[in-house]
Amino acid sequence: MTLHVASATAPVNIATLKYWGKRDKDLNLPTNSSISVTLSQDDLRTLTSVACGPELQEDKLWLNGKEESLGSERTQNCLKDLRDLRAKMEASDSSMPTMSQWKLHIVSENNFPTAAGLASSAAGFAALVVAITKVFQLKEDYSEISKIARKGSGSACRSLFGGYVAWEMGQSIDGSDSKAVPVSTKEDWPNMKAAVLVVSDVKKDTPSTSGMQLTVKTSDLFQERIKNVVPKRFEEMKKSIVEKDFATFADLTMKDSNSFHATCLDSYPPIFYMNDTSRKIIRLVHNINAFYNETIVAYTYDAGPNAVLYYLEENEEKLFAFIYKYFNKVSGWDTKYNASELQNFLKKFDAVEEKLNFQTDEDIYKGVSRVILTRVGDGPQSTDQCLINKETGLPN
Amino acid sequence: MTLHVASATAPVNIATLKYWGKRDKDLNLPTNSSISVTLSQDDLRTLTSVACGPELQEDKLWLNGKEESLGSERTQNCLKDLRDLRAKMEASDSSMPTMSQWKLHIVSENNFPTAAGLASSAAGFAALVVAITKVFQLKEDYSEISKIARKGSGSACRSLFGGYVAWEMGQSIDGSDSKAVPVSTKEDWPNMKAAVLVVSDVKKDTPSTSGMQLTVKTSDLFQERIKNVVPKRFEEMKKSIVEKDFATFADLTMKDSNSFHATCLDSYPPIFYMNDTSRKIIRLVHNINAFYNETIVAYTYDAGPNAVLYYLEENEEKLFAFIYKYFNKVSGWDTKYNASELQNFLKKFDAVEEKLNFQTDEDIYKGVSRVILTRVGDGPQSTDQCLINKETGLPN
Repeated sequence: MTLHVASATAPVNIATLKYWGKRDKDLNLPTNSSISVTLSQDDLRTLTSVACGPELQEDKLWLNGKEESLGSERTQNCLKDLRDLRAKMEASDSSMPTMSQWKLHIVSENNFPTAAGLASSAAGFAALVVAITKVFQLKEDYSEISKIARKGSGSACRSLFGGYVAWEMGQSIDGSDSKAVPVSTKEDWPNMKAAVLVVSDVKKDTPSTSGMQLTVKTSDLFQERIKNVVPKRFEEMKKSIVEKDFATFADLTMKDSNSFHATCLDSYPPIFYMNDTSRKIIRLVHNINAFYNETIVAYTYDAGPNAVLYYLEENEEKLFAFIYKYFNKVSGWDTKYNASELQNFLKKFDAVEEKLNFQTDEDIYKGVSRVILTRVGDGPQSTDQCLINKETGLPN
Repeated sequence: MTLHVASATAPVNIATLKYWGKRDKDLNLPTNSSISVTLSQDDLRTLTSVACGPELQEDKLWLNGKEESLGSERTQNCLKDLRDLRAKMEASDSSMPTMSQWKLHIVSENNFPTAAGLASSAAGFAALVVAITKVFQLKEDYSEISKIARKGSGSACRSLFGGYVAWEMGQSIDGSDSKAVPVSTKEDWPNMKAAVLVVSDVKKDTPSTSGMQLTVKTSDLFQERIKNVVPKRFEEMKKSIVEKDFATFADLTMKDSNSFHATCLDSYPPIFYMNDTSRKIIRLVHNINAFYNETIVAYTYDAGPNAVLYYLEENEEKLFAFIYKYFNKVSGWDTKYNASELQNFLKKFDAVEEKLNFQTDEDIYKGVSRVILTRVGDGPQSTDQCLINKETGLPN
C-alpha cells in the first residue's frame, strides 16, 4: 500500500487565566481570552501518527489501543479545515498527490492515564491537527493551525505552543481571529515547575461544555467577570510572565481560579468542581505562602477537583518541605526523586516545624490519589516514533 | 432591694436575601438591603430578663447560666442608646425614676444549643434590646428599636418582627434610616415551614465580620452583587412574599445563597462556609424539585455549612418522602412526629422510588448531626417567665 505517514506529539496545557464560556458553541469561540502554561511532554503528552493513501477505504481512529468513532462534529470540522488547506495547495500545483481526497488512519496514545482527569482533549486535538498538518505538508504557521485545533476543543489551541501561551478571544463571528499566540517561551522563564495533585472524586459534576452554557445563561456575576475582571487580568498576567514576576503571576492565577469557580457556584443550579480536599489544599497553599511571608506557590483548578501547583525551581525545597510532608504516602514522588532526596524534604519540614503557625488535616493525603511532577515544556514535536504500520495502515 | 424587672423573648431569623458586607463597621451599616423569615420561638428563641435599680453596683450579664463580660463595644452601644432614650423621657417628666442612671442586671437563655451554629446573636441582641425597652417603658416603635439592635449585631434588627422582614440598608451615614420593616406578617403567609439540617463540621472558616471585610476589600465580583444583583432581587423577593408565590421566592432564595457564597469564594484568600455535605444537600434539593417538576423546597446557607430548607406545609409529605428517607438516622424528628407519621414518610418514598431519576449518596446523613423542624413565627414577646430574682437581682 502506498501510504504517506507522519507522527507528532503535543503537550497538555493548564490555564492560569481560565477559559469558561463560549460565545459560539460550534466554532468554540470563547467569551474571554485566556492564558496557559504548557507542561513538559516528558510527563504528559499525546503521540499521534497519521497515514494517508488512495487505498484507504474510510477515515479511522484508534485511541490508546482502541478503535473510536471519528463521527463527532468537532473532529469532522478539524479534518475538513485541514483538507481544505491541502486542496488549495493541490489546486496551485497539479504535481502534488491529491491527499485532500484520500482517507486518513489516525492512531493516538497518551503517556499518562486519562483517569487522572487531566485535560487530555487539548493535547489530543493538538497532536491530531499537527500530525495531519505534517502529512499534508501544510505551510500555515501554528497560530493559523491553532484555529483548527480550537474547533476540536477550545483549549487545544493553546497546546500548539510551548512555554506561556495566550488564546486571544478575537472579535469576528467566523473565528478567524480567535487563535493562540506565544506570550513567552520556555527558555525565557525555564524554572517554572508544576505539581499536579490528582484528587480522587466521584465523577465530574457537569461536563465543561454544558457547564459553560449554564454559567453564561444563568450567572448574574459572569458578565462582570468577562467584561471587566478578565480583560484587566489578561494584560496584567501577560506582563507578569514577560517580567518573570512570580508573586504577581501567582496571585493572578489563584484569583482567577477562584473567580471561575465562583461563577460556577453562581450558576443555577450551581456547579461544583472542587471538593473538600481541593479546599484544604487551597488553604494549605495560602498558609505556606504566609508562613514564608513570600508567594512561592500558586494553585489553579480546572473543571474538576485536581490541584495544579505552580512554583519556581529555586523554591522547590521550601515548598516540598510541606507538600511532601503531607502527601508522601501518595504515589508519584519516586518518578523524580530518590529516597535520600525525599528524606531531605522531610528534614526541611522538621527544621521549620517549631515555627509552624498553622494546622493541616493529617488525613489530607487520603483525598489525593497521586502526584504528577512536571515543569514548563515545549510545543508540538515531530517524531520518528510511529504508531502506525506503513504497509497496512493499521496500528502497530 | 427595689428593682424594676422585665422579661422578653425574641426569635431567630434566617436571611433569604443575604446580608454580607458592612459600609460602616462600628454602626453595622450594610452594603445591601436584606430579607429574612422569622422562625417560631417554640423551637428557637432567646429569653432575656433585665433588672434595673439604684442599688445595683454595676452592669452585669449572665448568658446560659454563665456570667459574661458586658465590655464589648457593640453591647455598650446598645445600652447607651437605650439609656439615652430613657433619659429623654425622664427629662420631660421629673416624676419618672431615673433608671437611665441605674445599673442593669441582664440574664439570658436560649432554648436551643448554641452548638447548633445557628445565628443566636440575632435573637440574643433582639431580646436584650426589647427587655430593656420594656423595663425603661420606652415608647419608640420596633423599627426605631431595631436600629439599636442592629448596632449589637446587624441581623439582630430583623428579629424585631415576626413573619417576613426586610432590613432596609438606608443611605445616611449615621444609620438613622438603616432599620427593619415588616414585608408580610406570619398570618399573611402562615404555611411556611423550615427544616434546619445541622451539618457537623470543624469550626467555621472565618468569623462573619472579618469575612465580610475581606469580601468587600478583595472580591472583584462583589460590587456587581451589591450594585445590581441584590437591589433587583430585593424588590422581586418582597413581591414574591406579598403574592405568596413560593416558586419565585424559592428560586430567588437559592440564587441569593449561591451568589453570597460565590463572593466568598471570590474573596482573597477565598472563604469557604459550605462543605461537601452542604453541596450534596443542594444537589438533593434541585433533584427533588426536578423530580416533582415543581419548586417545592428552597435551601439557604448562612456563614456556615448548615442547610435551612424552606417549604410550604402542603408539600411536607412530598418533601419528607426524600428528606426523612435520607436523614431518618439523624435526631430531631420525634420532636414533631410520632412513629406512624414517620413511617408514613417512608411509605411515600417507597411509592415514588421506582420513578426515581436521580441518585443520592446513601451516607449523606453522616455529615448531619440533627434536624430542627420549625416554621415561620412571631416577633418578640413579653413574658411573665422571669430568669432574675426580684429581691437579689441575681439569676434564679
